[in-house]
Amino acid sequence: MMRRLPPDHYISGIRSGDRLVLSRAITLVESQLASDQALALHILEQVLPQTGASIRVGITGVPGVGKSTFIEALGKHLTVLGKKVAVLAIDPTSQRSHGSILGDKTRMETLSMDPLAYIRPSPSGGSLGGVANKTRETMLLCEAAGFEVILIETVGVGQSETLVHGMVDFFLLLMLAGAGDELQGMKRGIMELADALAITKADGDNAAAADRARIEYQNALHLFPPAPTSWTPPVLTCSALQNQGIGELWAVIEAHQNRLTQNGFRDKNRQRQNLDWLHSTLRHQLETRFYNQPGMAERLAAVEDAVRKGDLLPVQAAQQLINTTLP
Amino acid sequence: MMRRLPPDHYISGIRSGDRLVLSRAITLVESQLASDQALALHILEQVLPQTGASIRVGITGVPGVGKSTFIEALGKHLTVLGKKVAVLAIDPTSQRSHGSILGDKTRMETLSMDPLAYIRPSPSGGSLGGVANKTRETMLLCEAAGFEVILIETVGVGQSETLVHGMVDFFLLLMLAGAGDELQGMKRGIMELADALAITKADGDNAAAADRARIEYQNALHLFPPAPTSWTPPVLTCSALQNQGIGELWAVIEAHQNRLTQNGFRDKNRQRQNLDWLHSTLRHQLETRFYNQPGMAERLAAVEDAVRKGDLLPVQAAQQLINTTLP
Repeated sequence: MMRRLPPDHYISGIRSGDRLVLSRAITLVESQLASDQALALHILEQVLPQTGASIRVGITGVPGVGKSTFIEALGKHLTVLGKKVAVLAIDPTSQRSHGSILGDKTRMETLSMDPLAYIRPSPSGGSLGGVANKTRETMLLCEAAGFEVILIETVGVGQSETLVHGMVDFFLLLMLAGAGDELQGMKRGIMELADALAITKADGDNAAAADRARIEYQNALHLFPPAPTSWTPPVLTCSALQNQGIGELWAVIEAHQNRLTQNGFRDKNRQRQNLDWLHSTLRHQLETRFYNQPGMAERLAAVEDAVRKGDLLPVQAAQQLINTTLP
Repeated sequence: MMRRLPPDHYISGIRSGDRLVLSRAITLVESQLASDQALALHILEQVLPQTGASIRVGITGVPGVGKSTFIEALGKHLTVLGKKVAVLAIDPTSQRSHGSILGDKTRMETLSMDPLAYIRPSPSGGSLGGVANKTRETMLLCEAAGFEVILIETVGVGQSETLVHGMVDFFLLLMLAGAGDELQGMKRGIMELADALAITKADGDNAAAADRARIEYQNALHLFPPAPTSWTPPVLTCSALQNQGIGELWAVIEAHQNRLTQNGFRDKNRQRQNLDWLHSTLRHQLETRFYNQPGMAERLAAVEDAVRKGDLLPVQAAQQLINTTLP
């Protein structure tokens, strides 16, 4: 266990952009200890007025699409422009493997040594919803420390895309060019959340296929209804290897941010995200309290078994559990 | 208030297929009275062994697609084959308008007079999740009363499609042929839930456009990853007016049911649906208890306002509410 700093040290350290203090504050956020969490909450309260000014970008795509390489290229593009960039991740698999710390560090070698960039591996442990809430809090701390762009990477597949979509201003889907099976392995419905699609690895022998995929996806996206924000998701090609299309993509993100700031949807979106966060925290805490009651795991396993066999109605099972456990 | 029957009358009446008793039992299921709900639960427990044998079909589509006309045609097709058909509905709007009772009755004139068909309008009142659970229970009662096909119609748009998808074996999406804007007004992601698409009103001047739409959708569906059930959703055209394509569609539903019964996915799917039902009931009851505490509405409105303005962190707000209200 790392010794704690006095509360004010965290707050002033974060405000002055001290990365070491920022890291230690994020460790408090990620801690399972109640006293650490209380301190983290206190720090968050104090720096709240310094949060909210960044552009929040979620980035997803199937394994093999080249997410890390892409994020490194985008991150470098931004730091060359003089922008401070933080890279966070939501990784459902890290609940088992206990973090991809080494993975992240080695994957983004150049960016991790850039003084304007800050890379924080995904927290491990707890439910996906809990992990997501820690990422939201980490994002706020990074904003308070002066980071102007937050890139949140989803690792693996599953529900993490929806969670990340619910905490960012712009949601980018990376795709690989292929032969008609581009959506293979993708969770259904993700494409419809995207504010832009980027076909990666559009270089060399792959360039022509990437361009065909771009046209195909652009046509497919036309089948979707227009978003209420009046933003039509563009499809781009890019090559992190040749550093092509990265600047164009950032221009798209900035155009989106300007449009939605002007028409009020950026604020509206963030307000809705905050209310969702409130209610998901409430739900999460109510369920955690319920499911963590002593003996609940065994009782739940028994009724689930009966429900699965068709011996017990789900509604009966729920009532039994609630009646026998709540006063 | 209708006088109650003795419990055994409900049970034997349902088992013998008495439609009047069935209707009165469904009224108990839909009642807000705790004593009615307890009786309904008792009845459900007793008839549980007689449930589960039907083919459960969910049907959705935008307003104007001709859902009622289509369901009437499909229902008639089935009763001509000698099958007993129940038509239920999930209607989020009926929470405000207090039911579409007259609407449903008059909309399906022919079918409603068919002795093999039973049409039950959607229940009104309560949250959408609560309404969905009542529909699940109603479906079980209809099965116990010997109905072999349950058609569940979603009315309007919103979350009801996902809910219906979570309680049926086969999910059918009705579509209108149009000019490139076929998905207008559809909730994003619904197409990906469908086990089949049917282009309606494929008759007269519209027949050629319907056929073009069929090809277009068939191509679009190829972009989606194959379902683990190894079922590829077909796209059909049909005309309820000319009674064309209805038999073909029923053959598709039967083929799907056979395939998934054989490969075990029908049972697996229903088991998963039952566990989802259990946990959604638990969640629903925990939240209902929490949000219905005296004074909660005012406290919640106050913190939501602070969260919206950015004065309060969502996680702080949640903690405040839980600390001040739970012992």
